[in-house]
Amino acid sequence: MSRVFNFSAGPAMMPEEVLHQAQEEMLDWHGLGMSIMELGHRGPEFQSLIEQIEADYREVLAIPSNYHVLFVAGGATTQFSMVPLNLLSEQNKQADYVETGIWSHKAVVEAKRYGEINVAAMTKTVHGIHTLPPQSEWQLNPQAAYVHYTPNETVGGIEFHWVPKTGKVPLVADMTSSILSQPIDVSQFGLIYAGAQKNLGHAGFTLAIVREDLVREPLWFTPVLYNYRNHVEHKSCYNTPPTYAIYFAGLVVSWVKKQGGLKVVGQRNHRKAKKLYDCIEQHADFYVNKIDPACRALMNVVFSLKREELTEEFLNQATQAGLTNLRGHRDAGGCRASIYNAMPEAGIDRLVEFMVDFAKRNG
Amino acid sequence: MSRVFNFSAGPAMMPEEVLHQAQEEMLDWHGLGMSIMELGHRGPEFQSLIEQIEADYREVLAIPSNYHVLFVAGGATTQFSMVPLNLLSEQNKQADYVETGIWSHKAVVEAKRYGEINVAAMTKTVHGIHTLPPQSEWQLNPQAAYVHYTPNETVGGIEFHWVPKTGKVPLVADMTSSILSQPIDVSQFGLIYAGAQKNLGHAGFTLAIVREDLVREPLWFTPVLYNYRNHVEHKSCYNTPPTYAIYFAGLVVSWVKKQGGLKVVGQRNHRKAKKLYDCIEQHADFYVNKIDPACRALMNVVFSLKREELTEEFLNQATQAGLTNLRGHRDAGGCRASIYNAMPEAGIDRLVEFMVDFAKRNG
Repeated sequence: MSRVFNFSAGPAMMPEEVLHQAQEEMLDWHGLGMSIMELGHRGPEFQSLIEQIEADYREVLAIPSNYHVLFVAGGATTQFSMVPLNLLSEQNKQADYVETGIWSHKAVVEAKRYGEINVAAMTKTVHGIHTLPPQSEWQLNPQAAYVHYTPNETVGGIEFHWVPKTGKVPLVADMTSSILSQPIDVSQFGLIYAGAQKNLGHAGFTLAIVREDLVREPLWFTPVLYNYRNHVEHKSCYNTPPTYAIYFAGLVVSWVKKQGGLKVVGQRNHRKAKKLYDCIEQHADFYVNKIDPACRALMNVVFSLKREELTEEFLNQATQAGLTNLRGHRDAGGCRASIYNAMPEAGIDRLVEFMVDFAKRNG
Repeated sequence: MSRVFNFSAGPAMMPEEVLHQAQEEMLDWHGLGMSIMELGHRGPEFQSLIEQIEADYREVLAIPSNYHVLFVAGGATTQFSMVPLNLLSEQNKQADYVETGIWSHKAVVEAKRYGEINVAAMTKTVHGIHTLPPQSEWQLNPQAAYVHYTPNETVGGIEFHWVPKTGKVPLVADMTSSILSQPIDVSQFGLIYAGAQKNLGHAGFTLAIVREDLVREPLWFTPVLYNYRNHVEHKSCYNTPPTYAIYFAGLVVSWVKKQGGLKVVGQRNHRKAKKLYDCIEQHADFYVNKIDPACRALMNVVFSLKREELTEEFLNQATQAGLTNLRGHRDAGGCRASIYNAMPEAGIDRLVEFMVDFAKRNG
């Protein structure tokens, strides 16, 4: 079968050039006579590779020098624990969380096990339309050790298009589904983390960008691998890191650079999302998106069919047309097109064409 | 360059057939038009894959039905924390550890943060020869929640060729560098764990085989992903697992089956190790192994050159001859040939030939 346009929310589509490169290098990486996955992590080859990948991330995301760049094994759920374990202390167990969907809710549930968590704001639903609360409505605690939020909710398809101002209280962001989708100003954050399986590479590690002053003494019972300091001091090699997943992330970030960096990638992503949201708006009698236009996600376009009974047929025909994994999250239902960096504009055009045609045939 | 014989201790050599299969399937897995790494973990395809891999492990290792088979993201160091967090309780914080090298020592250090750890036995050195203490000399605590040991120490090259009897106290084993090297009787253990990057696949996850009754309420501060129960209840998909690493492990275990299973693989491994140890013995004026013959490791053959100043030359010439990564661990020095399942007998023959020749030329 030829390659499909895969709208999976994650693990998600990879750039085809990256897959080709990995395929070519599978048995012999850089003339060493072995795969990168067969190479010891403490040897000079892997060490210079991981340094290069860190340098590429620093360049692409314009990460200031007072931030550490860490590769932590496991998904973003590791950070739901690591953030409170490292940023709370016996002296201050207070933290603010903004709850805007399934993922930020999970972060709250885990944090509550370790601290006094104040939910400072939540998504609002006005006349059936979901919207994000303006910061003027947030109940922030000036004593909080940090403020945690989820700039983009992958399941809900709702995204902050502004960065909260939290003054001296460090801002922590779960950017799992928005990282590398457009330029960001890292200096506005204390800590950024992102699971790899959307825009960074394949599932297996989480990128953490941690401002120096937040590498603190964690709560005493923090497991050795959940202590940011151990990752900082050992440059993400405290123990054997997921070397192949890190290698793959290196291929992807280098692909992002070749695309022209985040400015170019971001412009393309805005064009892609606009095409889909426009299609939904223009066929408002057939497709519905219930997110306030000011908070629509760039990476995850959720929609449903007005005639819900047509959903299965829509998904089946889409799959037949090579447009796969458009089913919404099991907790949300409906449809979702996740359109990360690897999704080419041609995939969006094909999807729009299909949606217009399906609406015509069933309208 | 052609493929080399890679004696790395881990990440380690992979079977060439496995790499070829992964290479072929990189852009299109089973005709789906996408790589396995682009596939959602909750879809029917990945779910049936992970079920098949679990079934293959159960078959190859003859795992009884009262054991859970779990894939936990990260290396075996995760288990240094997870074991005490899950097996200790407020009622019983006592555990016995057998300390026989670098890895079991690290397990002790982490466990001591959570409980009252008794080091029940240690490696002995008699007339310069390292040996393992017979069980009659172990100071076991009958009240211990568990006994932890490391059947094979990857760095030291020392291995238990017998399984301790701990009666009603569950036996926990770190089999990172010995798993799948020969048949084992799982029923003698309460919990077995093994990082993937030696005999299972590439670095990225740890296999945990946990007897049902040991899936308990963990200590209250255990992070959500460090709780065995969450992995059991969600069949290793509590959150996004490292799907590509798991897929790769599936290729490897299926390769083991094709080799004829652990009996055949074990016989081959014994032949491989014997050839190397015999070579060292037969050139005792040139090469030295300081491990009691009764405890020599099957997977990690450590040796040094009597004339230590020749070590760099030995390693350089070996690399030139396509025999790579023979350097001993940074904490141990000397040389080490890690000869996991993927190392063919031809690689051992080439190494023996090289060692004999090098000794002749420098003797």
